[in-house]
Parts: sequence; structure tokens; C-alpha cells
Amino acid sequence: MTEGKSNQGVEILAIGTELLLGNIVNSNAKWLAEQLALIGLPHYRQTVVGDNIERLKEIVLETSERSHILITTGGLGPTPDDLTTETIAQAFKADLVEDKTVLKDIKNKLNDFDIIPQSNLKQSLFPEGANILPNPLGTAPGMIWSPKDNFTIITFPGVPSEMKIMWEKTAKPWILENHPSEKLIKSKTIKISGIPESALIERISDLITKKNPTIAPYASLGEVKLRITAQAKTAQEANELIEPIEFELEKRIGLSIFGRDEESLASIVIDLLRERRETISLAESCTGGQIASALTSIPGSSDVFLGGVVAYSNSIKQNILKVPPNLVEEHGAVSAVVTKSMANKTRQLFNSDWSIAVSGIAGPSGGNKIKPVGLVEIFISSKTAQESIQENFGPHRGRDCIQKLSVVRALDRLRLFLLMQS
Amino acid sequence: MTEGKSNQGVEILAIGTELLLGNIVNSNAKWLAEQLALIGLPHYRQTVVGDNIERLKEIVLETSERSHILITTGGLGPTPDDLTTETIAQAFKADLVEDKTVLKDIKNKLNDFDIIPQSNLKQSLFPEGANILPNPLGTAPGMIWSPKDNFTIITFPGVPSEMKIMWEKTAKPWILENHPSEKLIKSKTIKISGIPESALIERISDLITKKNPTIAPYASLGEVKLRITAQAKTAQEANELIEPIEFELEKRIGLSIFGRDEESLASIVIDLLRERRETISLAESCTGGQIASALTSIPGSSDVFLGGVVAYSNSIKQNILKVPPNLVEEHGAVSAVVTKSMANKTRQLFNSDWSIAVSGIAGPSGGNKIKPVGLVEIFISSKTAQESIQENFGPHRGRDCIQKLSVVRALDRLRLFLLMQS
Repeated sequence: MTEGKSNQGVEILAIGTELLLGNIVNSNAKWLAEQLALIGLPHYRQTVVGDNIERLKEIVLETSERSHILITTGGLGPTPDDLTTETIAQAFKADLVEDKTVLKDIKNKLNDFDIIPQSNLKQSLFPEGANILPNPLGTAPGMIWSPKDNFTIITFPGVPSEMKIMWEKTAKPWILENHPSEKLIKSKTIKISGIPESALIERISDLITKKNPTIAPYASLGEVKLRITAQAKTAQEANELIEPIEFELEKRIGLSIFGRDEESLASIVIDLLRERRETISLAESCTGGQIASALTSIPGSSDVFLGGVVAYSNSIKQNILKVPPNLVEEHGAVSAVVTKSMANKTRQLFNSDWSIAVSGIAGPSGGNKIKPVGLVEIFISSKTAQESIQENFGPHRGRDCIQKLSVVRALDRLRLFLLMQS
Repeated sequence: MTEGKSNQGVEILAIGTELLLGNIVNSNAKWLAEQLALIGLPHYRQTVVGDNIERLKEIVLETSERSHILITTGGLGPTPDDLTTETIAQAFKADLVEDKTVLKDIKNKLNDFDIIPQSNLKQSLFPEGANILPNPLGTAPGMIWSPKDNFTIITFPGVPSEMKIMWEKTAKPWILENHPSEKLIKSKTIKISGIPESALIERISDLITKKNPTIAPYASLGEVKLRITAQAKTAQEANELIEPIEFELEKRIGLSIFGRDEESLASIVIDLLRERRETISLAESCTGGQIASALTSIPGSSDVFLGGVVAYSNSIKQNILKVPPNLVEEHGAVSAVVTKSMANKTRQLFNSDWSIAVSGIAGPSGGNKIKPVGLVEIFISSKTAQESIQENFGPHRGRDCIQKLSVVRALDRLRLFLLMQS
């Protein structure tokens, strides 16, 4: 993404002490950022400030020196700590005047044509010359105001539902008309599993320096996402920029690409099995039901996923899954021999085409020198194919992470197994 | 909250174009904001900037003119768009020098003592005089560096788990030693289940207007948290402010308070069962392993939780749990009769003291007029006690929410059951 020169950008300013105290996350800024990207008007800076006149004034004035649009959220309510409109007016030494239409609207919304609470009165006051940004849902309208040449402030309330509808109905059309973008931004996310981020980057380092489309990597637990972002005049043109890059990534990364955009490992595995009209069951020890949870989070998974056993104690492995006791005694619960037995018995028990068994040491206790915390055995079984996988995720990662990585690895290996077979 | 003068505050700067594109929400800033409040070092401004050298440099320099601590997140990875350390060094015209200890640590983590990818090399470069902020989880250490008098920069990677452990282990102790606060802020969170937020607020409306301590409610799926926050000179003094409020809340809310601070419904249920030296097993249909996941996420849960069956299809309910087929035919899988049978058979199968069975219609399909999407049957069984619970969470909430609410309700009802019996 090419970033513009100073004094030409857009900025987002969220106002509210609750954000500085960490009581809530700044989801409004994320939402507005997405909307701006979609209409090809990216922004270059986001700021959060508390309900404090002096600091707010300082930030508004400094923004007016470097950007041409400032979008604010919050501080439009009726309470004493809602200071946005009056502080912005003060910053540019403008007087506040009452807007009769807004006043009438507030009265209507409060279901009272005679008396309006004193606290709501200030919500009808705006700097002279400001355009009202109507709020169809609440009593806090915003404004679109240009206090100086080449600088416009757009104010939204902090309530997400109100901000969103005001954006769609009034602010977005205003921006599209007054600041038409020559280009829109389109993104596609490629999801990869089984390659560490640094190795992946080396494989595509020449592509990452490209300007349009850009490729940005984001690593999360057990997967890396590559986000391809193109700027173009039309969606068609953006797609034509993205497609060859996607093709090139497919060539270099191959089967390690498990999905795109909203797809997940679980949804992909469900889809692959459904195409084959096959079913699956699970025997989970250290993952404690998390693979089952991942599969059943997908709507309609019940025609593929029959069920599973969470065999958290050794006696359950023996009593329900009928794993021979001597196998556990001789090899330990975390061994390929035991996961193989777990997987095969589970497949028979559920009469499924496939099964996965997982046993490992998630910690924090239970590890030793030979079988340390982080050691996980995965076994994939079908009538015609069997695979045993041993992973050592390391003890430093912690229980939660070891469990989650085990889920990712089990589903990813099954995915590869299914792809190899088809 | 009293806000300090300029040039004395703390600021948080999140670095990453993905934030400006709205791809992710800035949860790191929220977390750090909370941590700063907890040690009585509130901050006054948060900023987000993209992976852009000039803009980042501009913000770092302007911050150095008004604040005494700048905390950054992001941009410490191995990829070309990770620019934080070198840009900060450039801003203050400092040279980068290789840190041998960090280099060795990176080599160790990459499991390769000979070759280190070129891209990771830069993660061992720091401005002269910077203190390393070790990263126990990844290859991206941060730094604590004072490029000028009365101004310190603390850098964290953007990966939340890494940032959090680095804060706890190194950054927080450093701040507490070097920038002790006159007043500390102490919080205690009371967790409540089974009362809607609005009803709860009515019950405690007079307490919510208090200034020190303050009480702030946060509602999340199936629970409400009340955060009591006191400002005081000492921890002892803060506790003395919090205790009477906590006592008053206990009086008004009673058993619906299920835990405090880090406690969860799952951890409380595990603790209650462990005290009684009793065990539990599960039969999950619509929750698909999520109750098992919740219990097994608690370290040491294996002495209480024996395991469970995820019976996602009716045939599994019959073949493995041995629920008589006529029960399902006559009453349907989502019925008290069937969950009772599932719970009792599971308790026998696992030979546990307690069991929970859950069956419901999580949607989006599968509902009808008599048994709509959102209907969930829960059955709790022990040798001496049985309880059947029917919930209708409503079809509008969506699959994910219906599953999660079922988990909360099942664990909460078991908790109340156990408390009543003791």
C-alpha cells in the first residue's frame, strides 16, 4: 500500500477514558478502518484520547496541521464527560448554535414534546456552519464540519450500531462525493499451515517487496496468513492484480495452503470428507475435546462428524476404547502404539470411515526426560491408510498453546492425508 | 482519574498496517492499558501507525517531546515490514549493534546451531545502550531504551502471548522500580452468572455511582463481571476500600457470584469436585466437546474429569451410550428423557460420581415449531441426585452463542448443585 504525503491523509480519533483504562477494546476504529479501505481512502494514523478538554483540543489542532479528514468517535452523549463537539468548536474558536431540527428530533426520541432533560440540550448545539450527521437510532447526532480550508472533521457517537448506520447513510455518501477516491482496495487472505513464518517468508521474499498488490504475512498459533491487497479502479481490475499473485503463491507453497478468507482447517476438513461422503470420529486425550469443538463449530458438520471420546484418564482408554492395558504399561499413554490402538478402536466403535487419536503431555506437570511436556502423539486411521505423527511442541509454550497446536496439527495432517488420497 | 501534565505521561503506540486496514482489532493496547491502570500508571494517548518508516519516526519523535514513557507493540518480527527497532534507532541517530546473547537465543529457538536465516539476524540488532527485554516464547525480543533524558521506549512484539509474558516478567518489574506510582489502582472482579445484566444493575444501582472504589459492569456471554476499582496509597488501603463493597455485593447477589478475578466456571467446578474427592464424566451432543474443552483447559483437571463422549449423531447415543432407541424415537434426541438416559449411562460407563448430558438444537437448521433452534436440554446426574434443566436461548443468537451459553449454563447448574449439597 502506498501511503500518501502528510497534510493529505485521513485520521481516526477515538475519544473516551474507558479506552485508556483498558475497559473496552477500540472496535470502532477497526470497523471504520475497514470501511475506509473498502472505499479506497486509507488512513494513516489512529489516536485514542480520554475525556479531557486540553488533550483533545491539542490532538484536534495537531491533526488539522497534517491531515485533511479527521473522523472522531465518542463523546457526543448527554453526560458531563461528553465533550467532543464543544471542545472541537473551542479549538477553532467557533461559537455553538442551537440546531432546531436536531432539538425537535431529540424531543421526539425522548417521547416528550414538552420537557427535554437539561443534559440532552447540549446535543443540539453545533459550531456555526457545521452540517448535521443525523443519528437515526439515538439522541447523539454527529457533524461534518470544515473549520478551515482542506480540513474536515466528521464526528460519530461511540455506540457502534449508531456509528455504523450514520456512516452508511450519510458520512460515506458525503465522502464519496467530496473526496472521491480514484482507487478501491481489495484483499484476499491465503491461509497456510505446516511451514514456520520465517521459512515461508524466505520462499516468497521477492514477492513481499511488491507494491501493488502488496503481500503481508500475519502469524498466529500454528498458521500463517498471507494477505494480498490490491488497489485498482474497479473490482475486476483488483482481481486481475490479485489472481497472478495467488497463482504464484500456490506454485511456491503448494498443499501447505489450506484455505482462503473465512475458511478454517475445520471447515476444510469437513468439506473434504463431505465430498467423499465419508465420516470421522475422534479419540482425544490431551486435546480434551477441542478437536470435536472445532469440528462441531461448523454448521452442518453432523453429517460428517459422528462423535468422539474424550479419554482423559488411562482407565477410560482401557474401559471404553478397549486399548489393551499392557500397551499402556509397556509403551506409556503417549506413544504411537497406544494412539494407534485408540484410533482403530474408536473407528470401530463409531463405525466411521476415519478417526484421529491424540495423546500428549500438555503440562504443566506430567513430563519427564524421555517424554517431556509438549510431546504429542497423533494417529490417523482409515480402513486403507494409517499414519502416526509425533510432535514435540516444547515445554516453554504452556498448556493452552500445546493443546491448540495439537488441534491444528491433527486437522492439518488429516487434510493432507485426504488430499493425497484423492 | 486525574490526568498528569504533558511531558510526564505514558503513551502506547501500536505499529502495523494490518491495524490501519482494519484487519485486526487493537487488543494489545487494551491489555496494556489495563496493566498500566493496575500499577497506577495510567496513560494519556494511544496511537496506531502503519509499517512506514517516515510516519513511525515522526510519531516517536513527537512523543519524545511530550511523554516520558512510550510503549510500542509490533514490528519486531523477521520480515522486511518489521521496522520498529531500526526506525527508533534512526529517529535518535543511534547505531545498531548485535547482541550476542540474543543471537544465541534465536539460534537455539530455531533449533539450528549452524545456520540462522538472514531474516532473523536483524532481530539481534539493538541501539547501543538498550536493555534487552527477553522474549521467552519467540525470536522477537524487545528493548527498554532511553534515547534521551526523561524518555524511555519499551518495545514489545505484536504477538499477544509474547507481549504479555514479557510485560509480566521484565517490563512491569522495571517500571515499578524506575517509575513508582504515588497512588496505585487495585481492582477486584466479581463474576456472576444466572442474572441478566439489567436486573443486576437495578439491584446495585446505588453502589454504581460511587467514586472510590468505582464499580463497573461488563457483560459477556452468559456472565456479568463487576469490576471494583480502588485508588489508594497502599495495597492495604485499597483492599480496605474494596472489602466492604465486595461484602455488600455478596449480600445482594448471593450464590449467583461464581468466582473472582482469574477464576472461571470450569475452574470453580473442578475445585468443588476436588474438595469432595469426586469425579465427573460428560455426554455432549450440541456442545460438541466444548464442556470437555473447558474442563481440560484447567491444569490438573485429570484427577477430577475422567472423560466424555461427544455423541453428535443419534446412532452414537444408542450404540455407545446405550440410550434405548425407543426413547429417542418417542421423545426426540432433545428431551429430558433422553438426556437423563445419556447422563446415567455415561456415569456408569466412566464410573464417575457425577455426569452431565447436554442435547440441543444449535442451528442454523434442525429446529421446528415445537423444538426450535436454541432449545437445549441439560441433565445432571449423581448416585443421589438428579436434575433436569430446559433452556430456550432463542434462535436469533446463532450457533456459536447457543453452544457457548449451553456450556455456561451446564457448568453453572452443576456448581449450584454442588454448593447446595455441601
